[in-house]
Amino acid sequence: MALSEFELIGRFFGAPAAAGAGAARPDVLLGIGDDGAILRPPVGHDLVAVTDTIIEGVHFPVGCPAASIGHRALAVNLSDVAAMGAVPAWALLSLTLPQADEAWLQAFASGFGRLAREHQVALAGGDTTGGALAVTVQVLGFVPAGGGLRRAGGAPGDWVFVSGTPGDAAAGLALEMGASGPGGLDEAWLRDRFLFPTPRVGLGRLLNGLASACIDVSDGLLGDLGKLAAASGCGAEVDLTRLPLSPALIRLLGAEKALERALAGGDDYELCFTVPDRRLVEAQELLAAQPAPTRCIGRLASGSDVKLQRAGSVMDFAHAGFDHFAR
Amino acid sequence: MALSEFELIGRFFGAPAAAGAGAARPDVLLGIGDDGAILRPPVGHDLVAVTDTIIEGVHFPVGCPAASIGHRALAVNLSDVAAMGAVPAWALLSLTLPQADEAWLQAFASGFGRLAREHQVALAGGDTTGGALAVTVQVLGFVPAGGGLRRAGGAPGDWVFVSGTPGDAAAGLALEMGASGPGGLDEAWLRDRFLFPTPRVGLGRLLNGLASACIDVSDGLLGDLGKLAAASGCGAEVDLTRLPLSPALIRLLGAEKALERALAGGDDYELCFTVPDRRLVEAQELLAAQPAPTRCIGRLASGSDVKLQRAGSVMDFAHAGFDHFAR
Repeated sequence: MALSEFELIGRFFGAPAAAGAGAARPDVLLGIGDDGAILRPPVGHDLVAVTDTIIEGVHFPVGCPAASIGHRALAVNLSDVAAMGAVPAWALLSLTLPQADEAWLQAFASGFGRLAREHQVALAGGDTTGGALAVTVQVLGFVPAGGGLRRAGGAPGDWVFVSGTPGDAAAGLALEMGASGPGGLDEAWLRDRFLFPTPRVGLGRLLNGLASACIDVSDGLLGDLGKLAAASGCGAEVDLTRLPLSPALIRLLGAEKALERALAGGDDYELCFTVPDRRLVEAQELLAAQPAPTRCIGRLASGSDVKLQRAGSVMDFAHAGFDHFAR
Repeated sequence: MALSEFELIGRFFGAPAAAGAGAARPDVLLGIGDDGAILRPPVGHDLVAVTDTIIEGVHFPVGCPAASIGHRALAVNLSDVAAMGAVPAWALLSLTLPQADEAWLQAFASGFGRLAREHQVALAGGDTTGGALAVTVQVLGFVPAGGGLRRAGGAPGDWVFVSGTPGDAAAGLALEMGASGPGGLDEAWLRDRFLFPTPRVGLGRLLNGLASACIDVSDGLLGDLGKLAAASGCGAEVDLTRLPLSPALIRLLGAEKALERALAGGDDYELCFTVPDRRLVEAQELLAAQPAPTRCIGRLASGSDVKLQRAGSVMDFAHAGFDHFAR
């Protein structure tokens, strides 16, 4: 257990064959082991920079599998990169640990490294510190100069889409926290959606130049759609009968509770985006041809409310999503 | 106290006149408030990326003034940027807070914002979370393509320099932790060197293309010089009579203890760098003309030991500097 900070970095992250090593990239001119990394941005591109922290007891339960923590620390950032329509390239990892447990580190590094290599992301540097378990990751990526998706940019009439099946991760977290579950494949699916979310990087890249606005759904679909609409100076109308609910979620909670979870649950790391009416057919063809499932769930509208419609009735919904201080 | 995450960011960091607002830069195409920032790197430059975390009870004492915490969170990163010979441009701030106390936030933001504006650094994004007090900052900067300083690059015979007066910050921290002090200007100086370190950004920029190797002294001069020497495949010889000690440190501790503190104390955020013999005269002229005080303290040598010399006697010193896990 007398693993020094320098041994820890080298053994689990720095060496090319280490579990936590990211992709090898020729644009990393100087990587882990100096005071900073030296990186070469591609000509004709802008840089996208994101950062997110996950903390034990806040973003994941005490005792969460270390591989999941490593995966999620990177995934939540890749999801932000995806929401900007960018291609991720480089990551920095700031790891705060109560102690340097080798088995835990090996599993954490595996979860981080596997996802990094899958997306061709190099781990270019970072920082390790002793303290309560917390992980901050920064990811840098690129968009062609002048490109990139934003929350602003939508207009009334634009069609609203969402990827995946929101609500699953919130249900999976409840199961991880000890809620009784159905067991079997349904429970495994829901837990997996929390523990190992899929950042929609390929989808985000496709949407750059196609979508009018985009946001990643991390604090609840309704709240995050509300932020997109507000940034775009719009309201929105969502057709509740079109929300993509997973069979596992419906079987666990019933249709009505599943709908609530899909609207207000967090940790989905899906993309919510808007497409102008004139590009709808083109978008649907392109979306159908890529692997991430997407569904049109409504339209942006004039005004500033997010209205939920079902069977002819309309209700306003003021749920603000997850907020770390005003709970 | 019902300050939401979004209000917190806007009020203390996001608004142009906010205490924590950094510099306004035209290369920030999209700043705080979206899923990521969009930044335009200058043509013909490489990017330097650094990150460092500071945690209450580890890197600063409980009850440390909030303005100091804001200053130090950025300063420790600017020091890494300086050690790479880069010009800082953009920062991301990940702030984990036990509660959103407005007076604390105002002071923290003031400390952060003042230093950011001084160095023309834009605050381009970040993250706020509830939890034990911790601050992670990432800074991005530039060097002309192919440039940048590294720890490797020194060779036997290169002259070793250090900036400032190492040891003061460690003495200042001891005073902050309750050690009895001399009061008056000496105590104020030493505390200030811990609370508000001066990142040597201008010096680092000057050294890019002049120094053969560089490191920032954050874990103790001797340990950090050892890392530079090891990365350069050298040993080093330090003339103890040439160590720059502040009058305040000597008066507080006496000459012998002051020397120990200068060699092994942490938190200096000074630069230790090497200059090839053939460029010594040029370097001394350039160094004399810039504001950061610097002093030649020895030379790199063949072998792998760091030797300390005084009055003809030589001793090996194996102190490894600060390590977060192997204490």
